[in-house]
Amino acid sequence: MQTVKTINEMRILRGKTAGKVGFIPTMGYLHEGHISLVEQAKKENDSVVVSIFVNPKQFGPNEDFTRYPRDEQNDIELLEKAGVDILFLPTVDEIYPEGFETYVTVENTSQVLEGAKRPGHFRGVATVVTKLFNIIQPDNTYFGQKDAQQVAVMKRMIADLQFPITLHIGETLRESNGLAKSSRNVYLSEKDRTEAAVLFKSLQLAQEKFQKGEKDSAKIKNEMEKLIRMTSGKIDYISIADPETLQELDFIKKNALVSLAVYFGKTRLIDNSILH
Amino acid sequence: MQTVKTINEMRILRGKTAGKVGFIPTMGYLHEGHISLVEQAKKENDSVVVSIFVNPKQFGPNEDFTRYPRDEQNDIELLEKAGVDILFLPTVDEIYPEGFETYVTVENTSQVLEGAKRPGHFRGVATVVTKLFNIIQPDNTYFGQKDAQQVAVMKRMIADLQFPITLHIGETLRESNGLAKSSRNVYLSEKDRTEAAVLFKSLQLAQEKFQKGEKDSAKIKNEMEKLIRMTSGKIDYISIADPETLQELDFIKKNALVSLAVYFGKTRLIDNSILH
Repeated sequence: MQTVKTINEMRILRGKTAGKVGFIPTMGYLHEGHISLVEQAKKENDSVVVSIFVNPKQFGPNEDFTRYPRDEQNDIELLEKAGVDILFLPTVDEIYPEGFETYVTVENTSQVLEGAKRPGHFRGVATVVTKLFNIIQPDNTYFGQKDAQQVAVMKRMIADLQFPITLHIGETLRESNGLAKSSRNVYLSEKDRTEAAVLFKSLQLAQEKFQKGEKDSAKIKNEMEKLIRMTSGKIDYISIADPETLQELDFIKKNALVSLAVYFGKTRLIDNSILH
Repeated sequence: MQTVKTINEMRILRGKTAGKVGFIPTMGYLHEGHISLVEQAKKENDSVVVSIFVNPKQFGPNEDFTRYPRDEQNDIELLEKAGVDILFLPTVDEIYPEGFETYVTVENTSQVLEGAKRPGHFRGVATVVTKLFNIIQPDNTYFGQKDAQQVAVMKRMIADLQFPITLHIGETLRESNGLAKSSRNVYLSEKDRTEAAVLFKSLQLAQEKFQKGEKDSAKIKNEMEKLIRMTSGKIDYISIADPETLQELDFIKKNALVSLAVYFGKTRLIDNSILH
């Protein structure tokens, strides 16, 4: 694996890379979810590029940018072992030099759910991914379904701005108790980690209710809420929405994205599932 | 010259085009200014692509989108004669299909001068050019210095979003009386056209004053204003600003962009010059 830190070096390496290129943008502190995206990319491309960049522009002023977990050495070992060809590891100044002032905004899809709770978050994501796409020029890119709204925003951005790139979605990997794998799980106490299994349990409950014929979103959300209230988790939102536009659905016709955000202590966890 | 109307056809043609590609985005109703950009591109590339697209998103609600001059047949003849390889001629629905909602914004550089007078204009320009760059994937792109702020916004956008594209600037071509060539000159009456020569004369006056040692922007602008007031032109703005950031300069240190917008009847004309 070759590790490069500057845009120029990355461009030079890219210029020497023939065949299909798969690209996975990450913020590091990698877990099996990221590695499963690498494995998928390995199968579908001649070369795989991973970036690690904790992007300040996607964190709000009161969010966890400075304390976001980092472990570069372990990340490098994991990526090396997974057979990644190029690791792009830029500094903040390399990506956002003095005078930077251009942003990419996906309007409606960004404004609900996580976007409503985290203003500017998806503008930060769309902007940095546009830059990374233009630097790395991949044929395929890989995102995890765990961040369902990020997937919807990326789909919209790639289509709207005509990036010549195919988006692939990797399914959410889970701990044995159902907790979705996430870099932020490191913040959880042992007790939180056990209790946080309720996010997945509530999604399973939603699936069950729906499969038994319940189409009324309010009723499903109510059942989920009751279950979560049996733990110390504080609900930020529970949503049942159109999977593409993310607009809330009062009644479920065909399929729907159930998503939720729940606090355990100061740690905000998200999870989701498609009802079908 | 091959003419294509859909993004898919354009992508297929691009895939078959080897060597350096030069690209000139236009809104059609072409004049010698556009053709001089084509000639420059011919010298520096293996193939030249021109797009003609009157972009609704860069016109305000009270601007001239519907009456903007169009002459597709004449444009095609001019481009054919100039040796253009590919003409991309998409419809509005092809570029902005139902559900489109992703925009590129260059913040500060867009907010002054034309951007202050025409809110949303440069967001429209930046968005459509991003799309065209991603569809056509040129090595070089060509813009006219006549739209000085557009040049500054494009420079900033290309740098900030890391497009692997080099921007080239073509100098302003002029009528024999000094009036800058522009598609919008067709709106002018014979009298307006004669009087509108005052824009260039006022820029020449600014240059003279500056070369004689005048560094006080207010004094130079005042002289320009006096000259323009001798005609029926109504001044929208006169600016002396930093050529890169476009921030107004009270005193000129090294160089400066003098730019102005003046109405003749309902027609708004712009012009500019670099003081050096």
